[in-house]
Amino acid sequence: GEVFDKEMYQDNSLAGVVTGLAWTSVGGEILFIEASLSKGKGKLTLSGQLGDVMKESAMTAISYLRSKAETLNIDHRVFDQYDLHIHVPAGAVPKDGPSAGITMLTAIASIYTQRKVRSKLAMTGEITLRGKVMPVGGIKEKILAAKRAGIEDVILCKRNQKDIEEIDDLYLKGLKFHFVDHVSEVLKIALLENRVKDPMEFMFDPEPKKVVEN
Amino acid sequence: GEVFDKEMYQDNSLAGVVTGLAWTSVGGEILFIEASLSKGKGKLTLSGQLGDVMKESAMTAISYLRSKAETLNIDHRVFDQYDLHIHVPAGAVPKDGPSAGITMLTAIASIYTQRKVRSKLAMTGEITLRGKVMPVGGIKEKILAAKRAGIEDVILCKRNQKDIEEIDDLYLKGLKFHFVDHVSEVLKIALLENRVKDPMEFMFDPEPKKVVEN
Amino acid sequence: GEVFDKEMYQDNSLAGVVTGLAWTSVGGEILFIEASLSKGKGKLTLSGQLGDVMKESAMTAISYLRSKAETLNIDHRVFDQYDLHIHVPAGAVPKDGPSAGITMLTAIASIYTQRKVRSKLAMTGEITLRGKVMPVGGIKEKILAAKRAGIEDVILCKRNQKDIEEIDDLYLKGLKFHFVDHVSEVLKIALLENRVKDPMEFMFDPEPKKVVEN
Amino acid sequence: GEVFDKEMYQDNSLAGVVTGLAWTSVGGEILFIEASLSKGKGKLTLSGQLGDVMKESAMTAISYLRSKAETLNIDHRVFDQYDLHIHVPAGAVPKDGPSAGITMLTAIASIYTQRKVRSKLAMTGEITLRGKVMPVGGIKEKILAAKRAGIEDVILCKRNQKDIEEIDDLYLKGLKFHFVDHVSEVLKIALLENRVKDPMEFMFDPEPKKVVEN
Amino acid sequence: GEVFDKEMYQDNSLAGVVTGLAWTSVGGEILFIEASLSKGKGKLTLSGQLGDVMKESAMTAISYLRSKAETLNIDHRVFDQYDLHIHVPAGAVPKDGPSAGITMLTAIASIYTQRKVRSKLAMTGEITLRGKVMPVGGIKEKILAAKRAGIEDVILCKRNQKDIEEIDDLYLKGLKFHFVDHVSEVLKIALLENRVKDPMEFMFDPEPKKVVEN
Amino acid sequence: GEVFDKEMYQDNSLAGVVTGLAWTSVGGEILFIEASLSKGKGKLTLSGQLGDVMKESAMTAISYLRSKAETLNIDHRVFDQYDLHIHVPAGAVPKDGPSAGITMLTAIASIYTQRKVRSKLAMTGEITLRGKVMPVGGIKEKILAAKRAGIEDVILCKRNQKDIEEIDDLYLKGLKFHFVDHVSEVLKIALLENRVKDPMEFMFDPEPKKVVEN
Ligand SMILES: [Ca+2]
Ligand SMILES: [Ca+2]
Ligand SMILES: [Ca+2]
Ligand SMILES: [Ca+2]
Ligand SMILES: [Ca+2]
Ligand SMILES: [Ca+2]
Ligand SMILES: [Ca+2]
Ligand SMILES: [Ca+2]
Ligand SMILES: [Ca+2]
Ligand SMILES: [Ca+2]
Ligand SMILES: [Ca+2]
Ligand SMILES: [Ca+2]
Repeated sequence: GEVFDKEMYQDNSLAGVVTGLAWTSVGGEILFIEASLSKGKGKLTLSGQLGDVMKESAMTAISYLRSKAETLNIDHRVFDQYDLHIHVPAGAVPKDGPSAGITMLTAIASIYTQRKVRSKLAMTGEITLRGKVMPVGGIKEKILAAKRAGIEDVILCKRNQKDIEEIDDLYLKGLKFHFVDHVSEVLKIALLENRVKDPMEFMFDPEPKKVVEN
Repeated sequence: GEVFDKEMYQDNSLAGVVTGLAWTSVGGEILFIEASLSKGKGKLTLSGQLGDVMKESAMTAISYLRSKAETLNIDHRVFDQYDLHIHVPAGAVPKDGPSAGITMLTAIASIYTQRKVRSKLAMTGEITLRGKVMPVGGIKEKILAAKRAGIEDVILCKRNQKDIEEIDDLYLKGLKFHFVDHVSEVLKIALLENRVKDPMEFMFDPEPKKVVEN
Repeated sequence: GEVFDKEMYQDNSLAGVVTGLAWTSVGGEILFIEASLSKGKGKLTLSGQLGDVMKESAMTAISYLRSKAETLNIDHRVFDQYDLHIHVPAGAVPKDGPSAGITMLTAIASIYTQRKVRSKLAMTGEITLRGKVMPVGGIKEKILAAKRAGIEDVILCKRNQKDIEEIDDLYLKGLKFHFVDHVSEVLKIALLENRVKDPMEFMFDPEPKKVVEN
Repeated sequence: GEVFDKEMYQDNSLAGVVTGLAWTSVGGEILFIEASLSKGKGKLTLSGQLGDVMKESAMTAISYLRSKAETLNIDHRVFDQYDLHIHVPAGAVPKDGPSAGITMLTAIASIYTQRKVRSKLAMTGEITLRGKVMPVGGIKEKILAAKRAGIEDVILCKRNQKDIEEIDDLYLKGLKFHFVDHVSEVLKIALLENRVKDPMEFMFDPEPKKVVEN
Repeated sequence: GEVFDKEMYQDNSLAGVVTGLAWTSVGGEILFIEASLSKGKGKLTLSGQLGDVMKESAMTAISYLRSKAETLNIDHRVFDQYDLHIHVPAGAVPKDGPSAGITMLTAIASIYTQRKVRSKLAMTGEITLRGKVMPVGGIKEKILAAKRAGIEDVILCKRNQKDIEEIDDLYLKGLKFHFVDHVSEVLKIALLENRVKDPMEFMFDPEPKKVVEN
Repeated sequence: GEVFDKEMYQDNSLAGVVTGLAWTSVGGEILFIEASLSKGKGKLTLSGQLGDVMKESAMTAISYLRSKAETLNIDHRVFDQYDLHIHVPAGAVPKDGPSAGITMLTAIASIYTQRKVRSKLAMTGEITLRGKVMPVGGIKEKILAAKRAGIEDVILCKRNQKDIEEIDDLYLKGLKFHFVDHVSEVLKIALLENRVKDPMEFMFDPEPKKVVEN
């Protein structure tokens, strides 16, 4: 049991993989959001039997990141010249809901920047297009699952702080909570400054020169 | 409660976010229309579990603005060279109906012009393609929700004036109403002259020269 | 009541707006077909919860006009270089059937030519691809609605003349009927020679030169 | 009655309009297949509430004509540089089945060649991709409808000859039957040598030169 | 009867038409797979009310032939510069299942090579993407149908040989069976060396030069 | 029986064909994943009545391979300039689930590299986008099917080792098991160093030069 649990969190050597927290009919569990890029034409592929709401979360995360590309040091050409795939194992289990929003956003930000994700970190929270983080349900069950999996840091919406206060301290031991209002705070906590080892090297087709106007 | 209510309206530092008024089975509530732009090819993304009628409202708002681009000082190239995303939180709540028409139109006009939206303003009203504002239902519940959220100005269709007259003055205190016939009036009230701080700078690909003919 | 009724017909200062007559379970009513153009790539958008038959009417109207572009003095490049949106308020009311055919065709012809539409005119009739006007139902209810709304001229299919003859003269007073066989007659009656004030100026991308062959 | 019946067949001054024979639950009737072309990109539009089988008939007719373009003196560029619309009035009546195959093929051949269609001619028969004409049902009812509408010539599949032999001669008086095996025979009978008055003039974009290889 | 039966098989003067054997609830019957090509952009059209499995058979046949184009002396540009249509009469009869696989593959190979198909030949068998021929059901009924239609040669999967051995010799008289494992054997038997009279001449747009690398 | 069984595994002379293990309501069976490439534009075709989960497995496999193209010595242009078809016989049998993941990935890797697949090898296991191999069900039935078909090597997820330990040794005789955590281990075992005889020669269109940036 012990050994198996320890293996459950993802080591952070790969860009684009972030640990989320899900709530199912039989309790909480951790899930992984996996993002990958390959040379292409800007196509988006979503897999893992994702429902409509979860697909919209992914699209909202992408739009937010595209509109903030400059701030995040992402070359905007990567959006049109690379294909993005987001997969959420296990492949046969239907998943839905908005609570993977910040996890998806972090995974996509990591794959585009090739920055490492903080290790032993999990998160849950809805995002909006302007970057607000919104509260989600099932907090107690999710926290228990995080602890079982060896998670040490958890990011939640500020409005979920009250749900943590209702959990017996016994279950919270060893967990550090980060309560946030905005995705910029999420990325500050979740993305490390350094990039992964042997990062992907982006190659771009030349584009016609643009003129800035405002 | 007090503090929470005050936080409910969106401050107006961001372009593209406008407060609407919705009517649900359990009363009125405020909602936010969020619009964002990113360098792209003119793709439109709508999210937030929007129904057919609400999606058509968004398309009607966009067509109206495109056909009036010159008047609004919007460079028409932005429609083809930037992707527009409109999101309506909360992501998991299905929404439908035409009454967010003027709110969507204002959010889109703000994001394209980068002009600030008047603060503590909310609105509800259907739009048509020629820019007429049409009356909507649930006015009483919507007004109560606006008041709870700290709204001070409300835009409504002229034909909804009679619904306001039927509400006890007690509930209207502190609210200023703007009754309009046409979206040009909406934009005049809702969009401030000055642009947001650090506005988005549009960059365009060169286009072939055009010949005016009439 | 009086004032409200008078406001119901659309003044004819805008190109692309034409008054139709609809037949619902609770009687006749007027409706407006709104057409707008914006610089684009020839995309067609239909909104207003239109059913399959009504969408096909719109496509038939467009094909007819495209095939007669030269006769109507429409530059054929406008079809590929501008996007056309047709909206039928109210946005939340489902609409279907072929009887808006001539109204749609007139609205589209007006927006492409920027010619004014005759004021206080309403119409109802199916169109075919070769331009025939076909009879439709609900004539009595539609005529009553037209009169209530201050309409003075009505265009109908010749084969609907018998339906008018069955209506008491009392209800027809002040209405002038135009019975037609072909859409060329509709356009002759409905479109004024002069263009709207401050008409849209079409701008075209250069196209490769063509060779006439026959 | 008399006058109305005589008006029911289409005069043959227009290219692209051909009279078919349909079989409904209340007897036979004539229908018109209308084809039109406009400068475009080779798009196909089908309207008139056509079912799957009837849409496939249209596609089969088009493929046959495209593969025989040279024989029929059709410039192959017309298929890619003009949009084709096929409409079958009445717009609100659902239609299906393969029996309009030869009628559709004749209408399309007429619009592409601008050749006149023989007047007072009607037809019914399924087509296959290699040009075979296949027998169809409801022959007796269809023939009665043709006669009522003033039709003088009827094209049928040879395998439908036995159905004609079972009809009382009384009903066949004044009708001339053409029994065919192949669509080349249909076109020989249905398309006149001369083109319509003021035929459409096709204009083509230049294309890269091709090399014949075999 | 006699004459009609004799007419039922397709003479082999046309490229792209091959006789298959189908199994219906009322016994076996022959069917024709018709393939045609026309100058285009590589579009595929399937008609004849084909079900999902039969459509996938067609796509598998095409992929096999494309991957073997060089071996079959097919210029690969034909796949991108010509449109392929496959039709299976009768147009109104729904058809499904994998057993037309080898028939479709042969029809497509014939149209691309313009080689004649062996006359009085019929076949039935599933194909896989690597060219294996798989056994199918309803062999007895199909064989009876082939005989009634005047077929003389029949191609079947080797694993269907046992089904033939169970049929009374009386019914097999005059039929020659070819049992195969692989579609290369099918094509060797079914396609004659010589091309059809007046074969289609393929014309190609010039393409950018390619570099072979391995 | 004996002879037939021996024929059931695929010899390894072809690239792109890999043996999987499936679990049906009537026991385990082997299946073949077939991949083929043909000159094209990067289109993906999936056939064999594959369900949503299985289609997503294929897309995940492709994304993984594209993102690792350099490591696997695959020229990235092959993804855009060749069409990939994946077929899973038998064509009429619906198939679903994630357990063909590693089999699909191996088949696609083989077709892109033209490397031979180890003979008498079968495998079953889910993949994730970062290349993890996940455990699957029905192990006992699948192993029995592998043995019946003459398989000698089997690749499974490490987490499925416990399922093998529960099977009576009698049934495991002659089978060698490879337990893996990651698809890189799968490819190391499954793909031989040497390419198939007469391998496909890839030909590429020239592409605009790219600039590496990081
Ligand atoms: Ca949904
Ligand atoms: Ca706050
Ligand atoms: Ca709807
Ligand atoms: Ca007014
Ligand atoms: Ca319908
Ligand atoms: Ca008339
Ligand atoms: Ca159907
Ligand atoms: Ca014959
Ligand atoms: Ca199916
Ligand atoms: Ca064998
Ligand atoms: Ca599903
Ligand atoms: Ca492990």
